Amino acid sequence: MLASSGGKILVFPLDGSHWVNMKILVEELHAKGHKVTVVRAPDSWYISEKSPFYTSVTLSSPVGFEENFETFLSPQLEIRVQDKPSSFWSHAWSRFQIQRVLVNQFYQFHKRMSEMVVQMFEDENLMRSLHDAKYDVVLTDPGIGGGAILAHRLQVPLVFNVRWTIQGEAHLLIAPSPLAYIPFTATELTDRMTFTQRIKNVISYTIGMYTLSYMTEPHYKPVVRRYFGPDVDYLTFFVDADIWLMRNDFVFEFPRPTMPNIVYMGGFQCKPPKPLPEDLEEFVQSSGDHGVIVMTLGTLVGKLPQDIAEEIAAAFAQLPQKVIWRYMGHRPASLGNNTLMVSWLPQNDLLGHPKTRVFVTHGGTNGIQEAIYHGVPVVGLPLFFDQPDNLSRIRAKGGAVIVDIAMLDRHIFADALMTVLYNSSYKENMQMLSRLHRDQPMKPLDQAVFWIEYVIRHKGARHLQTHANKMSWFVYNSIDVIAALVTVVLLITFTCISIVRLLWRMIFVGKRVKQE
Amino acid sequence: MLASSGGKILVFPLDGSHWVNMKILVEELHAKGHKVTVVRAPDSWYISEKSPFYTSVTLSSPVGFEENFETFLSPQLEIRVQDKPSSFWSHAWSRFQIQRVLVNQFYQFHKRMSEMVVQMFEDENLMRSLHDAKYDVVLTDPGIGGGAILAHRLQVPLVFNVRWTIQGEAHLLIAPSPLAYIPFTATELTDRMTFTQRIKNVISYTIGMYTLSYMTEPHYKPVVRRYFGPDVDYLTFFVDADIWLMRNDFVFEFPRPTMPNIVYMGGFQCKPPKPLPEDLEEFVQSSGDHGVIVMTLGTLVGKLPQDIAEEIAAAFAQLPQKVIWRYMGHRPASLGNNTLMVSWLPQNDLLGHPKTRVFVTHGGTNGIQEAIYHGVPVVGLPLFFDQPDNLSRIRAKGGAVIVDIAMLDRHIFADALMTVLYNSSYKENMQMLSRLHRDQPMKPLDQAVFWIEYVIRHKGARHLQTHANKMSWFVYNSIDVIAALVTVVLLITFTCISIVRLLWRMIFVGKRVKQE
Repeated sequence: MLASSGGKILVFPLDGSHWVNMKILVEELHAKGHKVTVVRAPDSWYISEKSPFYTSVTLSSPVGFEENFETFLSPQLEIRVQDKPSSFWSHAWSRFQIQRVLVNQFYQFHKRMSEMVVQMFEDENLMRSLHDAKYDVVLTDPGIGGGAILAHRLQVPLVFNVRWTIQGEAHLLIAPSPLAYIPFTATELTDRMTFTQRIKNVISYTIGMYTLSYMTEPHYKPVVRRYFGPDVDYLTFFVDADIWLMRNDFVFEFPRPTMPNIVYMGGFQCKPPKPLPEDLEEFVQSSGDHGVIVMTLGTLVGKLPQDIAEEIAAAFAQLPQKVIWRYMGHRPASLGNNTLMVSWLPQNDLLGHPKTRVFVTHGGTNGIQEAIYHGVPVVGLPLFFDQPDNLSRIRAKGGAVIVDIAMLDRHIFADALMTVLYNSSYKENMQMLSRLHRDQPMKPLDQAVFWIEYVIRHKGARHLQTHANKMSWFVYNSIDVIAALVTVVLLITFTCISIVRLLWRMIFVGKRVKQE
Repeated sequence: MLASSGGKILVFPLDGSHWVNMKILVEELHAKGHKVTVVRAPDSWYISEKSPFYTSVTLSSPVGFEENFETFLSPQLEIRVQDKPSSFWSHAWSRFQIQRVLVNQFYQFHKRMSEMVVQMFEDENLMRSLHDAKYDVVLTDPGIGGGAILAHRLQVPLVFNVRWTIQGEAHLLIAPSPLAYIPFTATELTDRMTFTQRIKNVISYTIGMYTLSYMTEPHYKPVVRRYFGPDVDYLTFFVDADIWLMRNDFVFEFPRPTMPNIVYMGGFQCKPPKPLPEDLEEFVQSSGDHGVIVMTLGTLVGKLPQDIAEEIAAAFAQLPQKVIWRYMGHRPASLGNNTLMVSWLPQNDLLGHPKTRVFVTHGGTNGIQEAIYHGVPVVGLPLFFDQPDNLSRIRAKGGAVIVDIAMLDRHIFADALMTVLYNSSYKENMQMLSRLHRDQPMKPLDQAVFWIEYVIRHKGARHLQTHANKMSWFVYNSIDVIAALVTVVLLITFTCISIVRLLWRMIFVGKRVKQE
């Protein structure tokens, strides 16, 4: 085994919740003796300048990530909450509105991100210092384009910490994805589709891929052109990673084609629970055999419209369970004695507590992975992004009931909770997923570190990268070969027919002439 | 972690060289505390009835595997050796002849294998005892159909130890295989093809898939129908394994799409060298700095036509190296003092010896994997089966020179040897492959055992199996969806055109009438 510690790793993260994941990798790499440098904006939201785990490189101008991101949520949440699907068309219309808002916001977001790249590349001192540092590998989140472009600029091997790229779900960019059993993003479909669902999937794919390139191409294409010349296809640029560390696995995801350089590290952030703070433990124990319900809609959504909060509180109040609810809004009038409202909760420790019976979640990837890890069944209140898809996967595997927040009232919500509480199949299915998830040759985090160090040891992993990434779509699909073969077949057929007709005429027309 | 030792494993192997591989797994499973039962024919070639590692179940009638297999080789070897590619057409003709011989022999072979299944199923006592034994898993080689059918009959989870299935290279059956960069079997192409090569690849695929179903369908289809009913598609039967342990990896194979239930265990048989017998070690040491050349064409081909053997011996005699040559034929007159002719050699120990400079091989998978493991460059003399493809992969990775046995003379062969001996890139490339191969999170054999035990622990691995295996080709390729969408688009277009024409007529024809 070659030496691999003491590598120099340049991290170009995506700010916000993605950084929470990346930080776990950074800390682990630091613990293994690597030197980590993190590129951050001066107005970074989550990424602190000083850390015991890494050195930071701060860009000169602000990027405006936070304000940008804040405006993402409220209009979408509003439309989502008001979408009473009274008819197919009104539902489709509010879906369309959410998409429109999302697309415009992502368009602006990628614009800023591409400006961040230019800002970086134009800063000669910064670029020289990055160059001179001679990094062994660039580790980045391809949800934004900066890291991949930077790795090319520095000519350094590239590892993605990835679930989404600038072009949607990461598999779509590099692994064959037959639409007959691979549900496109945001369709909430599964790998078993009816004919109608497959039609929906193909249409969603067509619109979705167009939208994705609309949101990203105008920003990253000129940047790639400017710094690498007109012959470089900006998209092959983003598929050109040595290793894709995918925040996903096949306990969660439906089975699908994958590639040799995709390494699955789903649930790499999960760990055994720590003991709860004393007062929380006391509250949990007071639930007796009924157990506890844990609810949080993630760090981004602290509040809900008051009427919905009232309905949720009223549903909880009906139940014999104790409830721990992370909520930052006004205290609902219908809140029962059994419900503890908190502004923060130790999610992993609570999900790993033996008294926890149900997890009420918006369906963010981290929460879902922790629910799988601890085997806790789910009531889902999906809001946006990948949340509906995440929850539909757990539902398909028998571990979740999903409630549409637009339709939510106390009866519907209480029904959902009771189904998951008292139909034992939900718990059994989640515990089976938990057993499968934990039964791996190597822990996901160790796996991730192994492959980063592998890239350092071997200066890349070119032998795992398919040549197909560099092919045009018509070569990849053998369109030219099929066209050539069809032409040859047609030519032969045509020639044969011509010869037969010629002979026919010579014989019959000749005869007729004679007969006349 | 759940308990997993003490499983009951039923092994249905393919006799011959494939058993050599399977036996390594059997021994390891035995060492891990599992009870292994092996199904064998009374006239088995390699599989002994008594073993410390397994209990055997012997069928009542002979299968004739050996005599069947012996007849495989000589006509092919003869054609191969006589094929002086003087023109494209004569070369193509001898290729065609080899294919014809091969297809007929495989046709007979699969016929016997399917008769073996019927023999087994009709033996009620045998089937009852297999049923009552309640195996946890069936481990089989899908190069023949028996094991997969037996697993379905017994309703037991299924693990393949596989490189080839009854339908060709194993990936072809379950993983998407775009022909633009995935060379079809026996084409000797790589993942980087010219337009002409891609045409050759598509044509080879078309002919090849037809040939494969010609060789197998008439035999296995009726058997599956007879015991499982007319609705069962015999092919989905053979793709329905929980785990595919593939005797392959991406150090050897070109990168390509794979599936979640394919586990790569290429080189699982490789191990560090043991010391050589004293006399052999003495001979090896006598080579000094020049080192040693090791040559063997595998257990199946002990002899060559005398004229070729003379040329090989004469080429060796020119070199300053010592040569160890496994050869069972007449001692060539041109044999030099530097060449030791042996009837058997400790291949792994010799390839792992620091004095070994070149491995002259027919390109069988085991030998190639051992050459990679030990980092020894190769001169290839491919004869048949997967040997040309195996060697073309090592050539593409810069570790081998291939000599056409039909064109071989002392000069050509000596040139090939000297190229590999004195151009250091061959050795460097093989040593790089060796480093990559050895740098895995888990040893391939441990990986294989882990996944067999995984299937025992979880009673299968259904969550890793794609639903796509059960789809018809037109659903898989979304042909019905595309047809429906095209129809809708055409209908809309046609309706629009009709309306426009109608309006046109109403306006203009009306006008004209008025004008008249």
